Amino acid sequence: MSERTTIIVFAVFPGVTQLDFTGPHQVFSFLPGAEVIVASSAGGTLKSSGLTFAELRRLADIPACDVICVPGGHGVTDNAIQDDAFLGELRRLAATARFVTAVCRGSIALGAAGLLRGKRATSHWAWRDQLALFGAVPDPCRVVRDGNVVTGGGVTAGIDFALTLVAEIAGPEVAQAIQLQMEYAPAPPFDAGRPEIAPPAILSRVRDQNAATAKPHLKAIKAAADRLAAQSV
Amino acid sequence: MSERTTIIVFAVFPGVTQLDFTGPHQVFSFLPGAEVIVASSAGGTLKSSGLTFAELRRLADIPACDVICVPGGHGVTDNAIQDDAFLGELRRLAATARFVTAVCRGSIALGAAGLLRGKRATSHWAWRDQLALFGAVPDPCRVVRDGNVVTGGGVTAGIDFALTLVAEIAGPEVAQAIQLQMEYAPAPPFDAGRPEIAPPAILSRVRDQNAATAKPHLKAIKAAADRLAAQSV
Repeated sequence: MSERTTIIVFAVFPGVTQLDFTGPHQVFSFLPGAEVIVASSAGGTLKSSGLTFAELRRLADIPACDVICVPGGHGVTDNAIQDDAFLGELRRLAATARFVTAVCRGSIALGAAGLLRGKRATSHWAWRDQLALFGAVPDPCRVVRDGNVVTGGGVTAGIDFALTLVAEIAGPEVAQAIQLQMEYAPAPPFDAGRPEIAPPAILSRVRDQNAATAKPHLKAIKAAADRLAAQSV
Repeated sequence: MSERTTIIVFAVFPGVTQLDFTGPHQVFSFLPGAEVIVASSAGGTLKSSGLTFAELRRLADIPACDVICVPGGHGVTDNAIQDDAFLGELRRLAATARFVTAVCRGSIALGAAGLLRGKRATSHWAWRDQLALFGAVPDPCRVVRDGNVVTGGGVTAGIDFALTLVAEIAGPEVAQAIQLQMEYAPAPPFDAGRPEIAPPAILSRVRDQNAATAKPHLKAIKAAADRLAAQSV
């Protein structure tokens, strides 16, 4: 086993969904030899889903990492993909990383940074198709690996994503030991976690909720895709 | 539907495991009309599993709540159950609450506060049997309800626990909509999340890890149980 530290960086931003990174953060915190860093453009303090996180590092202060991971949330479209400096830090760190990863809508930020061209990737089910605008191939699986790009679906998929990545980095026995320590034998009280299995009335309800706020998000995605295309010319 | 706010309080302490409360916190943050509070004895800032949480409230400043929830972590035995003021706040808030709840080893703190006498309850699988010292009946289910006491198993069980509680508070449709929004259709890459199904070598490995640090925890539990018994005479 290597003695080298595995540096894992979560690149966060205002409007991130906290469980998108706290789930995988907890998994990685059990990985022997891992240094798990949460960093934003500004560093310091960040509010997320009603929690306040402090002592964040600045992305610009991190020279390199083994894993870069972008979590999701409405802030992906409201902030991250409109922030060229943030996207630049993603590109810079991705170039140093063994794995370039995202959870939930975080993959849209990877796309906007030009890191998903020609890659199969997933996202939150309601946003997955948008990845095609950045040249990615949307994949409906919960955890998708294409080369060194590993993406997870919506919010809770971050736990499955992280265990998958731990198995890749440290072997399946380490991942299984972490799974047992975290008692990850999930037993959801309902079968409603994917659009394909949710009761139709529940799916309509959530689609309506999302549609009510979707317009500025879709507009920001389109604008980011146009900027990326212009850069690539 | 009631217009009244549902106040949900996570009572945290140094050495809490972050996913024990960030998982259910994310679920409850989607509950319409909910105010979700994280509070400790001192308030302010708290480090947990490598993250720093800020702007915590003080338990003593919260007059009442609808749900009191105690998450787990090594700090339950290192701090929470040795802190009479913390246990007193749990008792005071529990007396105002509709639901008295815990995730993972948090149920040991409920026990030490005298809130589990005669109640069926669960905990992290490695610590569940200890609940009997506080007059509780250990139950191996992932989420256990006995009257107004609702407890979840280790770490990740907090998500199943929270969806169960949301269904109780706001109905199954609301819980299912939250489950779909969080894409909670878990697909663990391995079947190792419970001692009954984990490969024997993995179970031995985790048992050995836990045994190496268990002694002071077990001693603190025994002492807390003795103090509780002395108070009850």
